[in-house]
Amino acid sequence: MGGDNTSGAEGIGGAILHGGRLEAAAMRYPAARLPWIDLSTGINPVGYPVPELPPSCFARLPEVEAVLRLEAVAARAYGVADAAMVAAAPGTQSLIDLLPRLIAARRVAVVGPTYAEHAASWARAGRVVREISALDEAGDAEVVVVCQPNNPDGRVVPRGALMALADAMAVRGGWLVVDEAFADLADGVGLAPALPHPAIVVLRSFGKTYGLAGVRLGFALAAPAMVGRVRAALGPWAVSGPAIAVGTLALGDRAWLAASREALGRGVARLDAMLERAGFDIIGGTLLFRLAASETAGRWFEHLAAQGILVRGFERQTAWLRFGIPADTGEWNRLDDALQQYKG
Amino acid sequence: MGGDNTSGAEGIGGAILHGGRLEAAAMRYPAARLPWIDLSTGINPVGYPVPELPPSCFARLPEVEAVLRLEAVAARAYGVADAAMVAAAPGTQSLIDLLPRLIAARRVAVVGPTYAEHAASWARAGRVVREISALDEAGDAEVVVVCQPNNPDGRVVPRGALMALADAMAVRGGWLVVDEAFADLADGVGLAPALPHPAIVVLRSFGKTYGLAGVRLGFALAAPAMVGRVRAALGPWAVSGPAIAVGTLALGDRAWLAASREALGRGVARLDAMLERAGFDIIGGTLLFRLAASETAGRWFEHLAAQGILVRGFERQTAWLRFGIPADTGEWNRLDDALQQYKG
Repeated sequence: MGGDNTSGAEGIGGAILHGGRLEAAAMRYPAARLPWIDLSTGINPVGYPVPELPPSCFARLPEVEAVLRLEAVAARAYGVADAAMVAAAPGTQSLIDLLPRLIAARRVAVVGPTYAEHAASWARAGRVVREISALDEAGDAEVVVVCQPNNPDGRVVPRGALMALADAMAVRGGWLVVDEAFADLADGVGLAPALPHPAIVVLRSFGKTYGLAGVRLGFALAAPAMVGRVRAALGPWAVSGPAIAVGTLALGDRAWLAASREALGRGVARLDAMLERAGFDIIGGTLLFRLAASETAGRWFEHLAAQGILVRGFERQTAWLRFGIPADTGEWNRLDDALQQYKG
Repeated sequence: MGGDNTSGAEGIGGAILHGGRLEAAAMRYPAARLPWIDLSTGINPVGYPVPELPPSCFARLPEVEAVLRLEAVAARAYGVADAAMVAAAPGTQSLIDLLPRLIAARRVAVVGPTYAEHAASWARAGRVVREISALDEAGDAEVVVVCQPNNPDGRVVPRGALMALADAMAVRGGWLVVDEAFADLADGVGLAPALPHPAIVVLRSFGKTYGLAGVRLGFALAAPAMVGRVRAALGPWAVSGPAIAVGTLALGDRAWLAASREALGRGVARLDAMLERAGFDIIGGTLLFRLAASETAGRWFEHLAAQGILVRGFERQTAWLRFGIPADTGEWNRLDDALQQYKG
């Protein structure tokens, strides 16, 4: 998932609504407490520390060889057997936009509710898109899209079911697109070890896990022929010099990832407890966001916004709110105060 | 022009060959003097100084409003009447790749020899591409592409001729694509003031003039309807946070541009004199590169490479070499020595 939008998402402005629109929130809630705390995204609040970058990564056109090194590091990080099965892209959103140009399928099924850009991208390309609620409703779809774990509810489809569908898709020349934007922090979820597979394309997002959504970096993992088509379609210099530099460092840093996972685990436990104390039911989520339900979710959204805390609401699921993880003690305290002040 | 490739360019590796491939050059000339001096590109050797960037531009998804501010600054810099006629993109190359998806024309004429990615992009999209040597050979082309000033020879088509063609294209629903990658440093060349025009799309490159090719930033300038289609096709968050931050600063800094232009003017005069002393004829160029001819260009290329100086050769025009502008006294002295050592 390149960004942070889920089907029928409510929020602030725009036809497809995304999290992270703090400037728009500030316009809509001019009396809100400042500074704003953005809990509307699924981006790691304590990102990988960006070192001083070499001036050459800004100055020079990215070298082909530097991209290949990044892809090799990504292959190891994601558990792909060969870097020829990894294509670096300027954010997963660019890959979501690209797939309909590489796959001529007409009938597309998206397991939802989920990140809305998948259905939107195939629909823009003139394909027939159905939202299904489980894999076994895929029917005669030529492309099936699954977010794994799912956004916003954190649902995980058993690996066996995914592989069975992938094998069936392969037989009829179809594709299973697995968006693993939130898989870095979930053990054993990734399908990368199953590659090469003739029907599987996996999307991985760099910016969420590493808290660096601004650099625009994501990856397509697939059999070499498909990766070759992705690389050709993206053209030379698709990924910026700073993204290559930071991505190569961060994806090679297992210790940082392990420490971040631990910290986020503690954060999630704390957040769930705070939300339950405030009367929410926890539906699910990942280490980067929690989905909570309350019959007064709409009023909670407004109350939190007045306190300068932006969370994610959903147009179709009006009882849902999604919370990102606070970044530091100040943010935790303000959220705790805001949750205790109000009784829904 | 997103990069630095001209028709039939010779160089090092790859089906379409580009300048700036220093790592490939180092492999091919392992005994070359170090460090390499890269004169194979048309990128400003003394770039805009990148300030310390705010962590948020790496961490957060780029805000829509920040992109709109960048486009407004770009509109002023390029002389466009309204920011609704400016679309920011992750490098001009991404726009070159995009245009065939937005314009359904079948017959395309590219004024050449020029940057090869234009013809390559339309050809990849299955269009019929002709290289023409002047605008009056456009015939029944539905799209005409001109680089202005041209790469590699610096040729400038008179504004009146371009506008006459644009008006004629408008009558038949065609498009004139003007790649102004090297126009920032050439007075009065830009077609931006003629916008909105129903047939004109202008491409502007940020990285070359500002010496920041690694950040990946370029712009499409066109009537609002076409700009809307470009923005929609690029999707949300196409341009990275660092590119937005640096681009907004640099494009608003007229004093830096004026000073850079003066320095490059002196550099070009010095380079032309050095090349002529070495027996080259100066064919033309811009403030970011010079095109020089010699019957022994091939041997010059090898001699310079042995001295650790990478320049651009051309496959079809074997007597041509293109030289970027040295960055500092050390580079100037090494180029001068290398040119004086050898007698072609």
